[in-house]
Amino acid sequence: MTRHFEEELNELKERLLYMGSLVEAMIQYSIKILVERKEDLAKDIRKHEEDVNHIQVEIDEICLKLLALYQPTAGDLRFITSAMKINSDLERMGDQAVNIAENSLDLLKAPPLKPLIDLPRMAEIVKNMVKNCLDAFVSKDPELAGKVLQTDDQVDKFKDDIFKELLVYMSQDPNNISRAMDLVLVSRNLERIGDHATNIAEDVIFMVSGKDIRHHLLENKE
Amino acid sequence: MTRHFEEELNELKERLLYMGSLVEAMIQYSIKILVERKEDLAKDIRKHEEDVNHIQVEIDEICLKLLALYQPTAGDLRFITSAMKINSDLERMGDQAVNIAENSLDLLKAPPLKPLIDLPRMAEIVKNMVKNCLDAFVSKDPELAGKVLQTDDQVDKFKDDIFKELLVYMSQDPNNISRAMDLVLVSRNLERIGDHATNIAEDVIFMVSGKDIRHHLLENKE
Repeated sequence: MTRHFEEELNELKERLLYMGSLVEAMIQYSIKILVERKEDLAKDIRKHEEDVNHIQVEIDEICLKLLALYQPTAGDLRFITSAMKINSDLERMGDQAVNIAENSLDLLKAPPLKPLIDLPRMAEIVKNMVKNCLDAFVSKDPELAGKVLQTDDQVDKFKDDIFKELLVYMSQDPNNISRAMDLVLVSRNLERIGDHATNIAEDVIFMVSGKDIRHHLLENKE
Repeated sequence: MTRHFEEELNELKERLLYMGSLVEAMIQYSIKILVERKEDLAKDIRKHEEDVNHIQVEIDEICLKLLALYQPTAGDLRFITSAMKINSDLERMGDQAVNIAENSLDLLKAPPLKPLIDLPRMAEIVKNMVKNCLDAFVSKDPELAGKVLQTDDQVDKFKDDIFKELLVYMSQDPNNISRAMDLVLVSRNLERIGDHATNIAEDVIFMVSGKDIRHHLLENKE
């Protein structure tokens, strides 16, 4: 039975990683719609979203089955409950990619509003957070997870700076307002993806160490 | 042992409901800051937020302990895993109340921008969703949970209408822009609270029926 259980845990991990790769692609595509104006990618995002929704339900089923069948304890139990949480954060990240795509498609109807402020840079940082939290999960690496947590402040600063800069654009010319609003919303979508990556990083630390560090970040930071 | 287990499940439920009552109060207060300009309530929100964070960690600990110790199956297993999910959604609702409070405090620095569009009405509907999803959880009532799901479209419509109306205000007078932006953000915060209530309603339906209805809402709606 133990061997079988190990195999099923591995399958669960593979499934989560596959879901993670779909969500990473969704984020990538949504940013390409924004930055490179590649409208066509919207349909790939929709397709991935369907798959992600399907896998989300499937992963929860696997987790419940494993809990009921093998009644795991300690590290295995933490792995499974963390998997359920990561599952939910990944799905919500995907939803945010859909929102970015929608806000960006709105923007494509009009000529681009100046560069794009710091949004492409903010997007790069958030994409890295997503990649790193998934890598930390695969390699059970609490240090890498810790790096994700430390990036969160940078993302918040980008969000605030972008907001201020866009307010200036809006005040300068009412024709900018609608496009600038869409960009504000995209920055908020990116921020939320970063929040979900942070949640996953906290889950990884808990999964590996058994230590719940949520809401104690300040004490743990250098 | 069974009797003890039942008692502990009940305690878990009480704990979640207490957390729910704190989060409901946070939402209530944040809206009062917005609508009645009651600045003082911000400190109550902060206080509640600390308690909620503390209880969140505690509830996850209780759930893990129950899973490891009693190795529940079927309905009890679903109750405990649902409790972990509801726990996380409640905490995130509280975060949104904090965001509403922050955006609203920003607004208090300037004279009010006309009525407040439909924000107070949107807030009432979202508050009801929160109340109903918690009531559905207590009374294990999938029908009430279903009502919460049906309200989600109304909330989306409010969000879109408020957005359009605020765009008009901004275009009319650049002095409105900053305040109108804060109101847009509040409407997004409210929308997210509604989303979390929807998640909880889905968890309640799953907990009671064992049927996962996520991502199949359209098929289930009349």
